[in-house]
Amino acid sequence: MLEPYNYMEIKMPGTIEQKLEDLGISLPNSPAPSANYIPFVITGSLVFISGQISIEKGLLIEGKIGKELNVDTGKRAAKACALNLISHLKNACAGDLNRVIRVVKLGGFVNATSDFTAAPQVINGASDVFVEIFGETGRHARFAVSVASLPSGAAVEIDGIFEIA
Amino acid sequence: MLEPYNYMEIKMPGTIEQKLEDLGISLPNSPAPSANYIPFVITGSLVFISGQISIEKGLLIEGKIGKELNVDTGKRAAKACALNLISHLKNACAGDLNRVIRVVKLGGFVNATSDFTAAPQVINGASDVFVEIFGETGRHARFAVSVASLPSGAAVEIDGIFEIA
Amino acid sequence: MLEPYNYMEIKMPGTIEQKLEDLGISLPNSPAPSANYIPFVITGSLVFISGQISIEKGLLIEGKIGKELNVDTGKRAAKACALNLISHLKNACAGDLNRVIRVVKLGGFVNATSDFTAAPQVINGASDVFVEIFGETGRHARFAVSVASLPSGAAVEIDGIFEIA
Repeated sequence: MLEPYNYMEIKMPGTIEQKLEDLGISLPNSPAPSANYIPFVITGSLVFISGQISIEKGLLIEGKIGKELNVDTGKRAAKACALNLISHLKNACAGDLNRVIRVVKLGGFVNATSDFTAAPQVINGASDVFVEIFGETGRHARFAVSVASLPSGAAVEIDGIFEIA
Repeated sequence: MLEPYNYMEIKMPGTIEQKLEDLGISLPNSPAPSANYIPFVITGSLVFISGQISIEKGLLIEGKIGKELNVDTGKRAAKACALNLISHLKNACAGDLNRVIRVVKLGGFVNATSDFTAAPQVINGASDVFVEIFGETGRHARFAVSVASLPSGAAVEIDGIFEIA
Repeated sequence: MLEPYNYMEIKMPGTIEQKLEDLGISLPNSPAPSANYIPFVITGSLVFISGQISIEKGLLIEGKIGKELNVDTGKRAAKACALNLISHLKNACAGDLNRVIRVVKLGGFVNATSDFTAAPQVINGASDVFVEIFGETGRHARFAVSVASLPSGAAVEIDGIFEIA
């Protein structure tokens, strides 16, 4: 009762690929960065995925929320980060997203002004899509903070930790 | 000798609830967020707890440190975050804080001006209370950084990773 | 093929100490902080190391990138953070860096202006040195963000997660 999130109780039936199709979501390509860091590392049953910036269908969603961008655009940017994370997660699972046992933790960074107070609403754009796709398995711990700036001027960057079978 | 923090050597005698009583600390209520993220996820022996903002006895400690707030208020805000983390940690332990093997890592975000240099002193308000309550078990790795802004204008946000039995 | 980063395939031959000598790198001393947090915590096979600021040979590299400091100085600052992390990692390994199985994840915080867009280039200063020293074992997940300010005005702060044998 007090441990409602124990993953043993929430393994999903059905396939994630079917769910993606039902939702009309096609995952982006996920090229590896041209640097000495990599998209993900697997250690034990955990996958650590590098921070993904808000690139949507190949185009950067850039700008500062609270200045050039509003919260709704921020949510869209966060959703784009989530899809980029899931694209790498699929590679980490050797192509089979049904191996995802749990979305463990998201770290949400919002490129925002120093008086912006709605980082959680922005990052909900990512949290919501994880639950849409993965159901209860997609419910996660997270933080949401506003930072001074992000790579390439991206509106949002999110990294993640996942448990896989 | 070179691994002084191995948890096998530092399991605490006595009960944490007694310690809380001795310190005059009553844990806050910890409502679940009304969103698709959740207060904590357990994976293996690790508990990942979502970022907690500085709500003290139901009231938000808000403002920017180095501007409206000073370091002492920041420390109090960090302590409030710590108690909110511990409240969720108790739920993760099904009510029994004696199951906590180790406070592993805190991520400390301070809402501060761009010339603020004392984030560690602020986050000490959280680090200190973990050691007061859990003793050696409470000693942890952490980071402390100053961010542009925080949810609802909170002064401090802290997330955490814990090992439980 | 789809899991190229599985650590079982990339254990390095040779010794890390020899590699450090070949590269002309001498690790800094790594004093424990005078506070209730500690340099690292080991849980299972993972080591969580506290955020390290850019102290190079005992001197703080301080300032804001995009203002007083340029990207090249930022890279040097990030390299200094990396060497401080490795110094603590050596202690976590009881002096034997050959026990490092994998550099899992770096969290990179850059002290930068609100219009700075090159945090990844700065943090590459750390990513590169991990791969120079540890080879494929050193390739990691990471995030790179720009924050409002850092402890003592440091240019860069980086924390890390490592897997050890």
